[in-house]
Amino acid sequence: MPSNKQLHLDNRPEGEAKASNFKLVTTDTPALKDGEVLVRHHYLSLDPYMRGRMNDAKSYAQPQPLGQVMQGGTAGEVVESRNAKYAAGDKVVGFGGWQEYSVVAADQPGALRKVETTHVPLSHYLGAVGMPGVTAWYGLVNIIQAKAGQTIAVSAASGAVGSALGALAKARGCRAVGIAGGPDKCRYVTEELGFDACVDYKQHKDAGSLSKALKEACPDGIDGYFENVGGMVMDAVLLRMNAHGRIALCGMIAGYDGQPIPLTYPQLLLTNRLLLQGFIVSEHMEVWPEALKELGTLVATGKLRPRESVAQGLEASPESFLGMINGRNFCKQVVKLV
Amino acid sequence: MPSNKQLHLDNRPEGEAKASNFKLVTTDTPALKDGEVLVRHHYLSLDPYMRGRMNDAKSYAQPQPLGQVMQGGTAGEVVESRNAKYAAGDKVVGFGGWQEYSVVAADQPGALRKVETTHVPLSHYLGAVGMPGVTAWYGLVNIIQAKAGQTIAVSAASGAVGSALGALAKARGCRAVGIAGGPDKCRYVTEELGFDACVDYKQHKDAGSLSKALKEACPDGIDGYFENVGGMVMDAVLLRMNAHGRIALCGMIAGYDGQPIPLTYPQLLLTNRLLLQGFIVSEHMEVWPEALKELGTLVATGKLRPRESVAQGLEASPESFLGMINGRNFCKQVVKLV
Repeated sequence: MPSNKQLHLDNRPEGEAKASNFKLVTTDTPALKDGEVLVRHHYLSLDPYMRGRMNDAKSYAQPQPLGQVMQGGTAGEVVESRNAKYAAGDKVVGFGGWQEYSVVAADQPGALRKVETTHVPLSHYLGAVGMPGVTAWYGLVNIIQAKAGQTIAVSAASGAVGSALGALAKARGCRAVGIAGGPDKCRYVTEELGFDACVDYKQHKDAGSLSKALKEACPDGIDGYFENVGGMVMDAVLLRMNAHGRIALCGMIAGYDGQPIPLTYPQLLLTNRLLLQGFIVSEHMEVWPEALKELGTLVATGKLRPRESVAQGLEASPESFLGMINGRNFCKQVVKLV
Repeated sequence: MPSNKQLHLDNRPEGEAKASNFKLVTTDTPALKDGEVLVRHHYLSLDPYMRGRMNDAKSYAQPQPLGQVMQGGTAGEVVESRNAKYAAGDKVVGFGGWQEYSVVAADQPGALRKVETTHVPLSHYLGAVGMPGVTAWYGLVNIIQAKAGQTIAVSAASGAVGSALGALAKARGCRAVGIAGGPDKCRYVTEELGFDACVDYKQHKDAGSLSKALKEACPDGIDGYFENVGGMVMDAVLLRMNAHGRIALCGMIAGYDGQPIPLTYPQLLLTNRLLLQGFIVSEHMEVWPEALKELGTLVATGKLRPRESVAQGLEASPESFLGMINGRNFCKQVVKLV
């Protein structure tokens, strides 16, 4: 069996996450038991939610255990199989973590699925046609319940979730408005992702100023909002929500390092009779088939062409992850291992 | 036609509302036109939402206009009628405002309805079997979707909405937990209203301390929360909400004088995948018949026996209103005019 490089969570962040929180470990891959397959990871997925799990805090997910492989989505190829449903060469998506190989009990529900790579590049199954895409779909379809003609806004619009959100909103005849940090990201959001407008929050010192910019970008107000960030951005958007607006609360990355991110005017939730729903997509597995079908079609037909930010080699993962968390990178962040 | 004493909003509060914001005016009641009825008000309703309308702020309702009769619910008797559907002596509930008489175009939808007073005292149509009761019903049934065995909490539990909420929750087999200010109110909530427990928020300096008290009162956490208050109380409850909990956001009286009432940890909405829905009951007229039927039955069968705080005479309205707003009075606040 091949030797296997892994990245473990060695210690928890105090405030900001650092590369020193991770530790590179080399192990042997164990021999396969009946029903198991050995997957060589071609890509591993880096996602903002992982930052939350690095903290030892009560949350919707268990914290990432110390001294174990960082958990995360992976796409790769079966190299050895003791499971009749899988053969060497199959392209598969799973949850193999930050390592080069994983041994998967492939009959466990949700552990592994085969994918086609003729119309959809393998790495996209970690982004637009994977968990981030389904996250956008669930928020837009089930929570926001977007309808043609509405204005839909999303924060972290240049990210994996935001880019899918924009394409899904446009496909429903909505005005899609992004919020992102910096002119490069905003240009990408409008020119490549096809959003109708994008507001650069970094140009604004406070929620009032950002809210004015949103007013220009959303002349008819905001009907649906997909929140990835929290803090000042959420305060600003709340000032622009229309009556009976709906908010899908997916992430609050502004608070992941422990910063206070109070909601300044919760009264707006009342006076505008807003709905707000926090969610985590893994609790809604029932929508995955329908969502993946639409997302796959959007990608295959070129209506959703998300860029990827690709780092090379397992060792590059920590810095690449920190870059994403701190907004230095954009697009969907993956690490290529082959 | 009789002369008619009225209370107008004379000027808007700067910070706290004061008696001097109101002005007593005496006018003549105009002669009736075809279709109109003259109603003598027996009771007028004082409700927390009125404080919000005294401000000149964008909200779900238009501000109360200056120099006009304070708007509000009334219960009384038809004394003269030019409408075939109404006769002198009919007991009616409407929206006649802070005055002794009102002339009502009785064919306008929602303007007036006849009520029976054999099983339900007339004044209760302003409380348990009226707008506050329906408010509680909508929040509990349509937003919280309370189920047997769940723990349901409500702030301002001794008020008109809170008292109805408790009875409706108990009728559904829930554990009902109130939050109120002071030992007298808390005793009333448990001993007379039949809540399972009541927490006195005035015994606590901060949300953390209040949250610990809530933990004792809600050993299985809180599944549904009906919010009338906001501020520290909401922060404390959020710390106790169970995963997938549901919050009906009805009022935030803690902020009515313009105090900041930030939500300290909005992250809890995400990590516990909470649903929060702001609402105003007048936008949901479709539920009124079903809600009033249940509430009327609860009152007629003695399962909901809300006390009333009754002031005498129109002139007593401002002080009575301010007493309610500032938490000095409790129960449903009405003014008796006959």
